[in-house]
Amino acid sequence: MSHLRPICTIVGAGEGLGRSLAKKFATHGFDIALISRSERNAAPILDAIQKENADVTARFFSADVTDTNAVELAFAQIRKDLGDTSTLLYTARGDYTAYEPLALPYDVLEHVFRVEVMGAFAAAKSVLPSMIERQKGKIFFTSATAAFRGSANFPQYAIAKFGMRALSQSLAKAYSKNGIHVAHMRLDLDLDVPIMRAFHAKSDHEPNMVAPDDVAQSFWLTHQQPKTAWSNEVELRPFTENWTY
Amino acid sequence: MSHLRPICTIVGAGEGLGRSLAKKFATHGFDIALISRSERNAAPILDAIQKENADVTARFFSADVTDTNAVELAFAQIRKDLGDTSTLLYTARGDYTAYEPLALPYDVLEHVFRVEVMGAFAAAKSVLPSMIERQKGKIFFTSATAAFRGSANFPQYAIAKFGMRALSQSLAKAYSKNGIHVAHMRLDLDLDVPIMRAFHAKSDHEPNMVAPDDVAQSFWLTHQQPKTAWSNEVELRPFTENWTY
Amino acid sequence: MSHLRPICTIVGAGEGLGRSLAKKFATHGFDIALISRSERNAAPILDAIQKENADVTARFFSADVTDTNAVELAFAQIRKDLGDTSTLLYTARGDYTAYEPLALPYDVLEHVFRVEVMGAFAAAKSVLPSMIERQKGKIFFTSATAAFRGSANFPQYAIAKFGMRALSQSLAKAYSKNGIHVAHMRLDLDLDVPIMRAFHAKSDHEPNMVAPDDVAQSFWLTHQQPKTAWSNEVELRPFTENWTY
Amino acid sequence: MSHLRPICTIVGAGEGLGRSLAKKFATHGFDIALISRSERNAAPILDAIQKENADVTARFFSADVTDTNAVELAFAQIRKDLGDTSTLLYTARGDYTAYEPLALPYDVLEHVFRVEVMGAFAAAKSVLPSMIERQKGKIFFTSATAAFRGSANFPQYAIAKFGMRALSQSLAKAYSKNGIHVAHMRLDLDLDVPIMRAFHAKSDHEPNMVAPDDVAQSFWLTHQQPKTAWSNEVELRPFTENWTY
Repeated sequence: MSHLRPICTIVGAGEGLGRSLAKKFATHGFDIALISRSERNAAPILDAIQKENADVTARFFSADVTDTNAVELAFAQIRKDLGDTSTLLYTARGDYTAYEPLALPYDVLEHVFRVEVMGAFAAAKSVLPSMIERQKGKIFFTSATAAFRGSANFPQYAIAKFGMRALSQSLAKAYSKNGIHVAHMRLDLDLDVPIMRAFHAKSDHEPNMVAPDDVAQSFWLTHQQPKTAWSNEVELRPFTENWTY
Repeated sequence: MSHLRPICTIVGAGEGLGRSLAKKFATHGFDIALISRSERNAAPILDAIQKENADVTARFFSADVTDTNAVELAFAQIRKDLGDTSTLLYTARGDYTAYEPLALPYDVLEHVFRVEVMGAFAAAKSVLPSMIERQKGKIFFTSATAAFRGSANFPQYAIAKFGMRALSQSLAKAYSKNGIHVAHMRLDLDLDVPIMRAFHAKSDHEPNMVAPDDVAQSFWLTHQQPKTAWSNEVELRPFTENWTY
Repeated sequence: MSHLRPICTIVGAGEGLGRSLAKKFATHGFDIALISRSERNAAPILDAIQKENADVTARFFSADVTDTNAVELAFAQIRKDLGDTSTLLYTARGDYTAYEPLALPYDVLEHVFRVEVMGAFAAAKSVLPSMIERQKGKIFFTSATAAFRGSANFPQYAIAKFGMRALSQSLAKAYSKNGIHVAHMRLDLDLDVPIMRAFHAKSDHEPNMVAPDDVAQSFWLTHQQPKTAWSNEVELRPFTENWTY
Repeated sequence: MSHLRPICTIVGAGEGLGRSLAKKFATHGFDIALISRSERNAAPILDAIQKENADVTARFFSADVTDTNAVELAFAQIRKDLGDTSTLLYTARGDYTAYEPLALPYDVLEHVFRVEVMGAFAAAKSVLPSMIERQKGKIFFTSATAAFRGSANFPQYAIAKFGMRALSQSLAKAYSKNGIHVAHMRLDLDLDVPIMRAFHAKSDHEPNMVAPDDVAQSFWLTHQQPKTAWSNEVELRPFTENWTY
């Protein structure tokens, strides 16, 4: 189908960051496709976008990101309904529960790997062929400090984020030459969203919670980099951060 | 059961490195338990060890490392037959086939992840409780340069080795204090084994093939480090290496 | 003195990147102070800026960056003539001559260290007190791939860029909390400037030369990051790059 | 001159680690040359070695490591008196005083750079030609966690150790092929020596002080690695370490 506005597909729209990214890219002229498991979280985001941007199309597509087939089907539907994705923002993330390694169930590790790596790979596989055809496209993965170091308390999260970083580097090495910007957005911060507020309420760790809109702004700035001066690995830290490495 | 010789369990014994490690640790007073899928590869190794070291027990235990339950059962059998593992050497590795990311099937990625991460985790989970009880133990994972960087041609291998490195760091952070030495042995080299010779025969890349006995010797040296001066990340490079990063 | 426009001070203005940065920041409302050894290189840049932006002040200040005292005096003069520096862009760099380690003279190593680290430190020391007072400021160091890995042919350059990276991290850890954004801009690319064209004319290495204006644009985008989502380490790679690590 | 025992030259012998390395290598058949500024610290080490190893030659050579010429002269004297150095262990280190960046005097930064990088380079330059001739040799630099990350309190130390790491990588890339093993021994620990005990007495940081003999043992193990399976970067951590990255 022909379509005049570029399409930004956001996977994992339930979080505060998904909402902020959707607003940011809609404001900058993108139509928005949101993929998540349930429309319940996505609906208020889509409503808000439509209200603020009358000429933007913002649509929900259902998929469980742990099911690669479902991810591919959702992208096929996006293509049919809206067109090819110009920018893919992968923000899905697994449950953030602490386990020491011996207490970590195998299925939890597998599940987090499916969310963070298999789903990210399936999303990238779904958009890359048309991006290669157009010699243009953006694929950004939302990651975290855990991509840089193991963890005594969240081993599953470190394993998955390391894997996401390897995926990001692999795609960049394979497809940058086709004009496709792949970025691993490493958030060395905690998003100011309910799940993190609840997490920190139970800990004595001083939180450095950042407004998702600010993070979305830094995504947007990276998105504007000229193709001759791209970042593959982007770190985002709050000025208040107590550096831990 | 009571047992006077410490037990070294090697997972993935089909490779040249497994054989060299078995010989090395047998020579240094360990009984050997070999876990691999088929006894066919393991049998000649065990025979050779028995011939050279009359007082060493060297036994085969069957498990498919992609099946975490099978791995746990094999360790339960080792415990029953020989006793608790003092040193775990994880050398299993997946098929080494080149795929550009778009050509990589999901099940290949999953399979490599199971071999390199899930199996490694299951093996570590099987030996850690008794190591913690004794406040002593060694867990070494055989890894590769791919643990440090993505790859346009072997994305599955990079994702899995990144994950193995995250696992190794996580275990070290959690259990070093219990006297357990966890090491990620990063081979920045190609083992001089049939599979690598065949691989290089088809490429124009100049191989730097290293005798598995030499690698086993460097494993042994790391194994002797005093507990106050351990390495978690060990790199092994041949002097002839053409550094690629 | 009171001054309405923020001041961007660029150290090492002789290169193509210095010129592009000066133009970029002048266009975005900054007055420009250029520090370099000789006015000869700086004059045409300043002339061009004045012509294109009638209301911008663009001034030359002389200093040899290897002389920390001279650097401090130049900043004192800038403060007197224009006011406090809001943004410091350090782009000075040493001679880029290949030496194998044994052929590297001590004074060449010292000189490069003075240009890349001592001069950068002196410039940062000169602007930090007023930035801390205002709880606001930007200090960006122009660096290179050499900051990440040693080199058989340019050991002096690797040593100096590693040092610059350590300086950048140290300043970020010390002063981010004061609202000062410190960034190590790692150019994994070759600038399309005469010195690099001459360098590549003699080599068989395929150059990936990038227009300095594009690099300046990515500097500008980093400069706009909200303070809650900053990058300290920024990598800039061309889409055509043949990744070397 | 002809000499049957290999020579181990240790630069910076005043520390506990220098003493432990001297004892370790003397025990393993090396003659020992100690280079430091004053014989006062070296004399008791040499006496102890001579007492325990009647057939070992252990000699003092004077040099201020911040003076590259003095370093070269000391090695010329060693060559004349004892012969060519087979193993160089560089353990000199600068004063360990905390400075926030703005309080760091230029001459302190320069001095630490001279101790950690210029002196290390001068020592390496002094031994490399004869090592290349023999296609054999070992050069180990004693480094620290600071080589991996900047510091708000010890910027000079981070800058110098980053530089030492760049030097080590550069030498390895240039001369490994000549059979020369270059290693950057990164001590992620505090040596149990008077200077560190005094340092921690004033801080609330829980020290992880390690006996220098243990560190020397891990140096010795690395020293024994076969040339096909060398480590260039070696990390040494105590099992009690509270990982900080």
